[in-house]
Amino acid sequence: MSSFALNARLEGDSYFVSDLTLCTVRLLKDANYPWLLLIPRQSDLVEIIDLEEADQMQLMREIALASRVLREVTDCEKLNVGALGNQVSQLHVHVIARYRDDPAWPGPVWGAVPAQEYSHDRVETLIEKLRDTLAGADD
Amino acid sequence: MSSFALNARLEGDSYFVSDLTLCTVRLLKDANYPWLLLIPRQSDLVEIIDLEEADQMQLMREIALASRVLREVTDCEKLNVGALGNQVSQLHVHVIARYRDDPAWPGPVWGAVPAQEYSHDRVETLIEKLRDTLAGADD
Repeated sequence: MSSFALNARLEGDSYFVSDLTLCTVRLLKDANYPWLLLIPRQSDLVEIIDLEEADQMQLMREIALASRVLREVTDCEKLNVGALGNQVSQLHVHVIARYRDDPAWPGPVWGAVPAQEYSHDRVETLIEKLRDTLAGADD
Repeated sequence: MSSFALNARLEGDSYFVSDLTLCTVRLLKDANYPWLLLIPRQSDLVEIIDLEEADQMQLMREIALASRVLREVTDCEKLNVGALGNQVSQLHVHVIARYRDDPAWPGPVWGAVPAQEYSHDRVETLIEKLRDTLAGADD
């Protein structure tokens, strides 16, 4: 495989949840919204179109899986999916659970309000639920 | 096929570019950034995961195609891809050409600055180039 190295800022801003076939899945350290990052474990990726076509398809499968699992675990009202990468160029896909009463609704979450810390118990419980549900689902 | 009807706000805010196998492709009426919308031509879609799995794969093919074409036509520095749908729930995917000197960089484009009108000539030329390049590419 190679020299995949997770960008230090992505790593510092998030907790490890699980590894799928293509991506490592992480939870952002922001209790304002349940917010997953999917990061393909390959080096030198910036855009989705930097992936081989088969891996683009696998990325979509994993986006769909993460979306279903996040909605099941959080009972959210809307999903937001995005690959921006303007600040951290390493390819990463956001899958975010949104609610009509969250602090950024109906705007996008990026840069809307400062991140809110999770309590230790709350984040442990959330990560465990996400991990178990991902493990029990098909990708 | 069925009762696909384009949401009136999406229609009013954009120009028709081209129909692909799954999606209709439109250009947002905002000269701040070359900005495509991909809208699957099926009724009652809100989330990507509302699509059948084969159509999710086709959506990824069309996102990749639109991304390649947009980058080729605009020579942009970064692509942003997103499916939010907080304001208009009908499923639509944004594929946006970003530049380090655009008015929202490095933030997201949504809600950043008021839309800027295209001149008639500029938008006609851009749509024609997008249409020709989409037609000449594989999806």
